[in-house]
Amino acid sequence: VQHNLHCIALGTKLGARSHTVWIGDGGNFPGQVHLRRALERYLDSLREIYAALPGGWRLFIEHKLYEPAFYSTVLNDWGTSYHCVRELGEQAFSLVDLGHHAPNVNIEMIVARLIQFGTLGGFHFNDSKYGDDDLDAGSIKPFQLFLIFNELVDAERDGLPGFAPAYMLDQSHNVTDPLESLMVSAAEVTRAYVQAHLVDRAELAEHQERNDALMARETLKQAFRTDVEPILAMARSRAGGAIDPVSTYRASGYRETAARARPASSRAGAGIV
Amino acid sequence: VQHNLHCIALGTKLGARSHTVWIGDGGNFPGQVHLRRALERYLDSLREIYAALPGGWRLFIEHKLYEPAFYSTVLNDWGTSYHCVRELGEQAFSLVDLGHHAPNVNIEMIVARLIQFGTLGGFHFNDSKYGDDDLDAGSIKPFQLFLIFNELVDAERDGLPGFAPAYMLDQSHNVTDPLESLMVSAAEVTRAYVQAHLVDRAELAEHQERNDALMARETLKQAFRTDVEPILAMARSRAGGAIDPVSTYRASGYRETAARARPASSRAGAGIV
Amino acid sequence: VQHNLHCIALGTKLGARSHTVWIGDGGNFPGQVHLRRALERYLDSLREIYAALPGGWRLFIEHKLYEPAFYSTVLNDWGTSYHCVRELGEQAFSLVDLGHHAPNVNIEMIVARLIQFGTLGGFHFNDSKYGDDDLDAGSIKPFQLFLIFNELVDAERDGLPGFAPAYMLDQSHNVTDPLESLMVSAAEVTRAYVQAHLVDRAELAEHQERNDALMARETLKQAFRTDVEPILAMARSRAGGAIDPVSTYRASGYRETAARARPASSRAGAGIV
Amino acid sequence: VQHNLHCIALGTKLGARSHTVWIGDGGNFPGQVHLRRALERYLDSLREIYAALPGGWRLFIEHKLYEPAFYSTVLNDWGTSYHCVRELGEQAFSLVDLGHHAPNVNIEMIVARLIQFGTLGGFHFNDSKYGDDDLDAGSIKPFQLFLIFNELVDAERDGLPGFAPAYMLDQSHNVTDPLESLMVSAAEVTRAYVQAHLVDRAELAEHQERNDALMARETLKQAFRTDVEPILAMARSRAGGAIDPVSTYRASGYRETAARARPASSRAGAGIV
Repeated sequence: VQHNLHCIALGTKLGARSHTVWIGDGGNFPGQVHLRRALERYLDSLREIYAALPGGWRLFIEHKLYEPAFYSTVLNDWGTSYHCVRELGEQAFSLVDLGHHAPNVNIEMIVARLIQFGTLGGFHFNDSKYGDDDLDAGSIKPFQLFLIFNELVDAERDGLPGFAPAYMLDQSHNVTDPLESLMVSAAEVTRAYVQAHLVDRAELAEHQERNDALMARETLKQAFRTDVEPILAMARSRAGGAIDPVSTYRASGYRETAARARPASSRAGAGIV
Repeated sequence: VQHNLHCIALGTKLGARSHTVWIGDGGNFPGQVHLRRALERYLDSLREIYAALPGGWRLFIEHKLYEPAFYSTVLNDWGTSYHCVRELGEQAFSLVDLGHHAPNVNIEMIVARLIQFGTLGGFHFNDSKYGDDDLDAGSIKPFQLFLIFNELVDAERDGLPGFAPAYMLDQSHNVTDPLESLMVSAAEVTRAYVQAHLVDRAELAEHQERNDALMARETLKQAFRTDVEPILAMARSRAGGAIDPVSTYRASGYRETAARARPASSRAGAGIV
Repeated sequence: VQHNLHCIALGTKLGARSHTVWIGDGGNFPGQVHLRRALERYLDSLREIYAALPGGWRLFIEHKLYEPAFYSTVLNDWGTSYHCVRELGEQAFSLVDLGHHAPNVNIEMIVARLIQFGTLGGFHFNDSKYGDDDLDAGSIKPFQLFLIFNELVDAERDGLPGFAPAYMLDQSHNVTDPLESLMVSAAEVTRAYVQAHLVDRAELAEHQERNDALMARETLKQAFRTDVEPILAMARSRAGGAIDPVSTYRASGYRETAARARPASSRAGAGIV
Repeated sequence: VQHNLHCIALGTKLGARSHTVWIGDGGNFPGQVHLRRALERYLDSLREIYAALPGGWRLFIEHKLYEPAFYSTVLNDWGTSYHCVRELGEQAFSLVDLGHHAPNVNIEMIVARLIQFGTLGGFHFNDSKYGDDDLDAGSIKPFQLFLIFNELVDAERDGLPGFAPAYMLDQSHNVTDPLESLMVSAAEVTRAYVQAHLVDRAELAEHQERNDALMARETLKQAFRTDVEPILAMARSRAGGAIDPVSTYRASGYRETAARARPASSRAGAGIV
């Protein structure tokens, strides 16, 4: 609690407008933790932090299936997160990290639920095949990323009150240059957003109403398979950026220059949740 | 809705005290169903059914990850079930079918959550290794069944208000005699209940308080590995039942007698959710 | 065995060149089946069938994680399939159904293994999110389908001896017109094949050699996000087919005509493995 | 390769009789690694190591689904391990780490396969609920551990030629005293071994032959639920050990004494595969 209050104090000075709580608390073995009491204590602590939240700020809480706790994590799934958010109040929201769910789970449905209940805070974008692998966004399951943005754009166009998710990349770059991975990941997230805007929603609604499952699906697929790279490149250019960021970055020689300028000891990687 | 109202009317005549709604609605493909509107329609229907519920009755709703819908089931997880139950009112409760969850999910934690939030309605007991396999209770993951009852007995001893789960077996017997499977399954559920009562909860609480993860776990394991078969046999005997139900049933020749008495056409199996 | 010999006899008359064995044998409970002896018996039976295989034919065997057996399927994974194929001889091959694997498994690696070991027989294409859902190919995980074809095209271009996989759609159409689903599924399989041919393999090999993980991945992604619909449409047109098969089919009124011509009783759906 | 040759040289001096190769090689992204060439290189390296193996030694290779490689691990499953072992020769064997498999996979079947094919080298025992969690053996899925030993004891009693698996604990102790966890884990492994010896195999075979799935399962369950703690305690006592190892160890005050004797810097934990 003290650490979080300190962060909020720092954030106030920095002009921040939100605070995220992630806690890996839990147990490795059956019996280690009393499941109900652990959640009570977690909520009691959150209430203290919430009470210190400045007006206009949002509090995000982040659930995770496992790791570092290997049997019972306190904030383990979106249902628990949703309960806590409702208990706390209107400034509390659920944060969705794409890698924090059980195998096979339909993440775009979780996003739709949190949108519908008015409690979606935002995202930690990344991708994974097995666990919380923190790979580059869109690198493994690009269609899933599109389907998540399909829900987001649908909510945006419906003008749902209070709908304002925060977007963050939360990745771990072990085999790539982190800057390059961030460039490409940002492009992948934008790509999914643009493709989701290409969905003909009037046509989609009509197919849904007529229960034409095949054409409804194809309406989404058509948007997904449209190559929007030219749109993304033009947008980058108009914003004063590089049409091809990775090539431009490589040509700049920045990495080599920065590597020479920094002592070796500070180049060690840092783990990210 | 009409079908459910009809069931409630029949139940009233039969002296029932609860009504369970399970609906396999959903979509097989992305786009087929508008995720938010489908849940709205589901809730609207539930509200009509709930309004017709007699005083003193409980309404159970049952979530399921998938099947028959293969992409998006409307009531797909406990979080959605919890939301619906809260929307409906105090007579609505969540039902937990052990086979209706994603791989690796910690089901005893879901049970603990629903207990804590006062919304646990009861169980469809069965067991599974892969999907919603509807195998005999305790046949694949007996320790999981024990851990679920560990939560139930813990709540029972804490005297939580309104804690009164309904226990049902929901299994599909494809390679065994259904009556034999039901006998053994009932014994497995009772075994887990008795073993959970053997847990020394004062000692467990002390280990938890001192964060002695190993001894806390061993306190549970000691109860789990206690062979309570003599207790179960004595309880059956005192209740006027057979000490060894399956052997007694086989010796009775009931199956052969019943098979001869029934026309072949009525012996076909029936699917169970 | 008798059934399979009969099928081979029929196939000979029909001019077939291959025979597929799929057996759902196994157990629902631990102990029901002796795991080693069950595989021995399975192999003994396969040897009898294999001995009857005409020259030039191929025998395909198909593994499946579970269902209808819910605990131990005899031919349960690709490793067991590979062992059996090696035991049988050079006319035996492993068939890969995309829905028959454990969650999270990397199916394109299984394909690469079977290619490398010279034992890939072919495919049952479909898609799934949870179990063996038999949904339309490419409808849930289109990038996975592309990655599988990336391995196939890579092997094709390497000119591996004996590489000649058989391609089949094995789907269950519950919410769509089966003919429409087959049209779109065939297009999806072809799309993945064409996209895999767009991969610049010289460039990819160079990135791999220099361990440039990001550019290697982007080389694949660039091919995957290329919209090849115009190529597919032109190919259909040149082959005398419809540019837009589903619209053409719907305009033809075939479904309504056929439905009127057939008695209701014959319209019931048929389960597919 | 050089590192492995060095280890073998050291092992020769130490009187070792086996050498284990575990390599986390692989790729984090599609395209990063050419799947077939990576396995070829892996096999080429293994052949060099195998060539240096002294007579009478065994070479163990260990597969793992993922981690540290998050998309494609070179030795990713038992099928690939089995292929490599066959390629190498009669001194090569597959090692099974219980945490290195996809969700839902039937590990006792993998053990049975490797036994049947004569290529089972041994085990890294541990337990897990989600990923490669390296928890204490038997702490999460004790029935699975029993079923694995059921296969091992069955093979032992059948007197299969060359059957001599190596048993190792491979765990990571984050919330317990490592020595205590090792004591209890060793007891759990022994417990499963003793319980597997209690299975009435003549009766089991008869139930299997008559396809009596329920009684076959109950024959296993009866052995599993027998409390063999008195047998284990007596065996420990006869071997000159403590009847209750953890209590004895705690009473000895060893941990406190050792902690005082060691500088703080050497007490940091070490990662285990």
